[in-house]
Amino acid sequence: MSRIDGRTPEQLRPVTIERGWSKHAEGSVLVSFGDTRVLCTASVTEGVPRWRKGSGEGWVTAEYAMLPRATNTRGDRESVKGKIGGRTHEISRLIGRSLRAVIDYKALGENTVVLDCDVLQADGGTRTAAITGAYVALADAVAWAQGRKLVKAGRQPLTGTVSAVSVGIVGGVPLLDLCYEEDVRAETDMNVVCTGDGRFVEVQGTAEATPFAREELDALLDLAVTGCAELTAAQQAALAATRA
Amino acid sequence: MSRIDGRTPEQLRPVTIERGWSKHAEGSVLVSFGDTRVLCTASVTEGVPRWRKGSGEGWVTAEYAMLPRATNTRGDRESVKGKIGGRTHEISRLIGRSLRAVIDYKALGENTVVLDCDVLQADGGTRTAAITGAYVALADAVAWAQGRKLVKAGRQPLTGTVSAVSVGIVGGVPLLDLCYEEDVRAETDMNVVCTGDGRFVEVQGTAEATPFAREELDALLDLAVTGCAELTAAQQAALAATRA
Amino acid sequence: MSRIDGRTPEQLRPVTIERGWSKHAEGSVLVSFGDTRVLCTASVTEGVPRWRKGSGEGWVTAEYAMLPRATNTRGDRESVKGKIGGRTHEISRLIGRSLRAVIDYKALGENTVVLDCDVLQADGGTRTAAITGAYVALADAVAWAQGRKLVKAGRQPLTGTVSAVSVGIVGGVPLLDLCYEEDVRAETDMNVVCTGDGRFVEVQGTAEATPFAREELDALLDLAVTGCAELTAAQQAALAATRA
Amino acid sequence: MSRIDGRTPEQLRPVTIERGWSKHAEGSVLVSFGDTRVLCTASVTEGVPRWRKGSGEGWVTAEYAMLPRATNTRGDRESVKGKIGGRTHEISRLIGRSLRAVIDYKALGENTVVLDCDVLQADGGTRTAAITGAYVALADAVAWAQGRKLVKAGRQPLTGTVSAVSVGIVGGVPLLDLCYEEDVRAETDMNVVCTGDGRFVEVQGTAEATPFAREELDALLDLAVTGCAELTAAQQAALAATRA
Amino acid sequence: MSRIDGRTPEQLRPVTIERGWSKHAEGSVLVSFGDTRVLCTASVTEGVPRWRKGSGEGWVTAEYAMLPRATNTRGDRESVKGKIGGRTHEISRLIGRSLRAVIDYKALGENTVVLDCDVLQADGGTRTAAITGAYVALADAVAWAQGRKLVKAGRQPLTGTVSAVSVGIVGGVPLLDLCYEEDVRAETDMNVVCTGDGRFVEVQGTAEATPFAREELDALLDLAVTGCAELTAAQQAALAATRA
Amino acid sequence: MSRIDGRTPEQLRPVTIERGWSKHAEGSVLVSFGDTRVLCTASVTEGVPRWRKGSGEGWVTAEYAMLPRATNTRGDRESVKGKIGGRTHEISRLIGRSLRAVIDYKALGENTVVLDCDVLQADGGTRTAAITGAYVALADAVAWAQGRKLVKAGRQPLTGTVSAVSVGIVGGVPLLDLCYEEDVRAETDMNVVCTGDGRFVEVQGTAEATPFAREELDALLDLAVTGCAELTAAQQAALAATRA
Repeated sequence: MSRIDGRTPEQLRPVTIERGWSKHAEGSVLVSFGDTRVLCTASVTEGVPRWRKGSGEGWVTAEYAMLPRATNTRGDRESVKGKIGGRTHEISRLIGRSLRAVIDYKALGENTVVLDCDVLQADGGTRTAAITGAYVALADAVAWAQGRKLVKAGRQPLTGTVSAVSVGIVGGVPLLDLCYEEDVRAETDMNVVCTGDGRFVEVQGTAEATPFAREELDALLDLAVTGCAELTAAQQAALAATRA
Repeated sequence: MSRIDGRTPEQLRPVTIERGWSKHAEGSVLVSFGDTRVLCTASVTEGVPRWRKGSGEGWVTAEYAMLPRATNTRGDRESVKGKIGGRTHEISRLIGRSLRAVIDYKALGENTVVLDCDVLQADGGTRTAAITGAYVALADAVAWAQGRKLVKAGRQPLTGTVSAVSVGIVGGVPLLDLCYEEDVRAETDMNVVCTGDGRFVEVQGTAEATPFAREELDALLDLAVTGCAELTAAQQAALAATRA
Repeated sequence: MSRIDGRTPEQLRPVTIERGWSKHAEGSVLVSFGDTRVLCTASVTEGVPRWRKGSGEGWVTAEYAMLPRATNTRGDRESVKGKIGGRTHEISRLIGRSLRAVIDYKALGENTVVLDCDVLQADGGTRTAAITGAYVALADAVAWAQGRKLVKAGRQPLTGTVSAVSVGIVGGVPLLDLCYEEDVRAETDMNVVCTGDGRFVEVQGTAEATPFAREELDALLDLAVTGCAELTAAQQAALAATRA
Repeated sequence: MSRIDGRTPEQLRPVTIERGWSKHAEGSVLVSFGDTRVLCTASVTEGVPRWRKGSGEGWVTAEYAMLPRATNTRGDRESVKGKIGGRTHEISRLIGRSLRAVIDYKALGENTVVLDCDVLQADGGTRTAAITGAYVALADAVAWAQGRKLVKAGRQPLTGTVSAVSVGIVGGVPLLDLCYEEDVRAETDMNVVCTGDGRFVEVQGTAEATPFAREELDALLDLAVTGCAELTAAQQAALAATRA
Repeated sequence: MSRIDGRTPEQLRPVTIERGWSKHAEGSVLVSFGDTRVLCTASVTEGVPRWRKGSGEGWVTAEYAMLPRATNTRGDRESVKGKIGGRTHEISRLIGRSLRAVIDYKALGENTVVLDCDVLQADGGTRTAAITGAYVALADAVAWAQGRKLVKAGRQPLTGTVSAVSVGIVGGVPLLDLCYEEDVRAETDMNVVCTGDGRFVEVQGTAEATPFAREELDALLDLAVTGCAELTAAQQAALAATRA
Repeated sequence: MSRIDGRTPEQLRPVTIERGWSKHAEGSVLVSFGDTRVLCTASVTEGVPRWRKGSGEGWVTAEYAMLPRATNTRGDRESVKGKIGGRTHEISRLIGRSLRAVIDYKALGENTVVLDCDVLQADGGTRTAAITGAYVALADAVAWAQGRKLVKAGRQPLTGTVSAVSVGIVGGVPLLDLCYEEDVRAETDMNVVCTGDGRFVEVQGTAEATPFAREELDALLDLAVTGCAELTAAQQAALAATRA
């Protein structure tokens, strides 16, 4: 049985990671998972938030947002509504936690990196594309900070790599990397964030229609681990390439 | 090795479920998981939100909040700050999804149930206590609606039961139902929402300090399933008792 | 003529004052005036707001709020609406002023006490129950601060006691301590805050339907003074008891 | 003993009531109590708020505000801060209640009058000047509505007149109509709203420094009743004059 | 062809500039352009915003607002709506920029002047009346600051004078100083801010109905320069007069 | 004398107009003026805002925003701050007015087009690039609506074309299309919006440092008209090309 876009159940959509997309940011990546396109920028500033001053430790945080017409129907701007919705908050927090999982705060020193993940076009999996792209932007920003001696020589703030993918059960079949049409029809939907060595940073599974059994959960986790491994390879390839 | 409060790793804190706590609400429960105390009220109104009108289907939603001095240090009121924080949003959404997992919207008819979960005292596990208590308040509210003929005779809006518990790894040991002190020291923290028949509605695991391996995830899920089964029994006992 | 709940015009509803309700707060009281139940917590922090720094004087402030389903019909959360309503503001300010009337700022030293009065169930007289309960929580918090030597030995920050009661004219008859049903039918409604020695801290009378004459005002003040004296006795009894 | 501005204790400041100040509003008054100047406009619109539709009854409401530099030190604009302060809310509500006390909603029919009271210059007593001026603006607006046949022939929406004055105890002496310098030094401060026939609409007394005794309260009420009678006369004189 | 109010195309409405309108502000002017009346106050405070501290330079800023019933139909208060509209923002920024054009920040020293322009009655040209009046209030405030030695002896913070007028094409005819009725019918609408020596500070032209040609633009600029020269003379006359 | 990037004073930066950038929007353009890159989407919905219903006329509006790291230093998100800044409001209004200048509302019928202009990278001239790009997106959206028969056959909602450019005086020399570095050093700064036939829709000139004379204004307008003509040609070329 083939999927709506012809993929096999365990196949990712075409993934591209374009580094150096912005001339201003210390790290910037335009990442695409199929038609989902997210601009991830990493902004480095010296100093940390007030509650962390004097600790000798750095900080990494993230903000996620969607352009109003990133989706099929135009959404109202959160700036116009005057408040951030629950979904936006939740995803921003998830991205921040995921990236902090591979940061050594001491090695980073009292510097802050803000990761902005702005969805330019959405077709499912925007949060997982954002995490995968933000890692590459973060790596570039950390290298920039090392080059500027903001990070002490010999210290490596990155303790590993991190990527993320969505999985779900659609029509009883576990699928990797759901596009939007699959996502809305999924019985169960899960986002998994893994480190490059195959351990878990976040596992968020939700029964959309019917509760799911342990075996289904296991099958989804298997798929996700495989998908993250492929994404890790794509990240490494992008970082190995000379920046355009 | 015994825990900070003398429990074994697979032991819940004392759980109490006090029905009919409020004279106004259609369903109301004061639930406690140890020192965590949450007042859950279920408010029934005829009609549904605008986007659902004419569908013949009902709606269930939830709002979670904490009193300012529910915690050890007083927190600012979100009403005074003028906006709801990300954590509050996230938990409100989780509670709503969890309860909707056992609702047959058609059977509920065009009625809305709002579940308010207000934490009066916090000592870890407030969201899982809220879900567990809210289910009982919801069951009472549904019975009330049936008594008032808001729900058509012979229809059962509840398709099952739902409860929730936290699990985590502290000092390398998987523990059930973390109290606050354990929670802050946990390497990994997971909230699991199960139906009464042992399937999953939500699985949310987060690596707080170090990424976790598949076997750790499996051990936590095992613990959680056991804990939810015990909570299901407590819910049934409370519902079987004549209301005070 | 007897009242809706069988009381005589000059009779209070049953009053309970339960100290030590919260394990975290420096002072905490669950107060009830009949079916009205308010959780009052007193939080002590060292230091004072910026505008008072270096004055050697302390500060006492209050915040009042209602749980959404404290009332017969569910109200929207002010945190969700993003702003505090006029009624909430007004009552918070009244409670703060009332408690400050019995505080010697110099003796308190540069410490702040925040009184949170959260209405868990409402049946008329929530602001007067809140003031009456908050005084007991404040007394416990001050004793705690003295025990911790935050307050200098030999100094007594409390200059007296304070309690409050509502009075009103219903069907031409002046009544003490209105319940909700009486309150909505009152021609005139008054909230009176007294010190333990029978003087006035606040007198707020409002003609709901028809303007009131001087003799009616006098009759209401007489009733209120009697009611506050009884409440003062209840406060003293609660404070004399060993805390549970 | 004479007062800071040479008045006797029972003397009002010079009061002026200038009708027809604005060319757009259906009623408009620039009222001054000494250096306190408030622009009161009454805006009539056909129809009532949603919750009152179909009742056949009208509505009257008020909004109070201060220009940023109405006071000695410039205050931040509430529109810039993005929220209305507690004091503003409280006074707006007081003005609305006071004017509604002399309105027959049935006679008004389904029309709404909004009273805007904007303080152009403040020197104590802004809320009492606002109520006193707003009554005159309201009377003009009601006459306008009668002229336009919005109000049925033979119906009189005004059931009486209303005015307000502040009183207080300064240095142990009860004083009428406090100016700002007196207000900040007052031990007790009271705002009293009376109808033209000498009954009370609102009595709001506050102990600023020390609780007050019943005799003090009585003395203040006596003063206030006298003051309101004088203000009633000034309102009638203004309304009797041909509008400029 | 004469205009709606009998003026010739190149004629201003009657202009009045009343200094010293407020007893509190360091400079204050009630300016009128026909029925448009704006209260302009200038508030001087020592010190500058944080981003300017230590620069030795001062700051001038402005806030524009309209009373709710300044217009023919009552508008909602921006403080009640909780946010400032785009038009208000835009005009506040325009006024601030216009006045800063004639300020020597170094000579002003680290002092701040806030210009509040509150429209009491609107009949077209409120922003241009505000700028014209605010200049006079600013001049008075600067003189006050010189008298208080906040500004160093021998320094003149004002480098020139500034005034503003609206022009527009109505029915094909270029007109000076549009009243509201002309403004709503204008094909093109332009606000021009000039210095006393006839140079431009701001030129803001907008095609309301049809794009405008270069010759039309030229004709409007000619009119505006003439109008600003007359307004400059009125400002000088007001400043030359002894303040009431 | 050549400019910082080697251009002559009357030379535009390289301009690219990439149509069909987004798969969801009815019209979408990625426009660049040198390093300034703006994503413009046009969203068509049937129906109009409430105040326009039943008029038979359509509506066009615009929203402008910047990604946080579009600029050299990261700016706070307006959605996080909870309000839109004055600059954003002002530019959104300018874009909306500019596009409405070439719309025949009757021909558009009761349809709404929202133009979202999101600055992905900023280097001066973001508002003029936005207007120029938004016109092309609007043209595509109108064609889409014609194809879907939302617009009646034989009706042309576009009455012309519109483009915009910035001009300014830097070091005494009038320059076309300022980049960021030129913009911050400009003595005078002007944004000009022209129709394709060379008439003006908006002229907004501001003296940043010193007031400007009539001859300077004339020189800037000459430059702007030339620049807009070139941009009009680029728009036509883009629209003539087959969409990618």
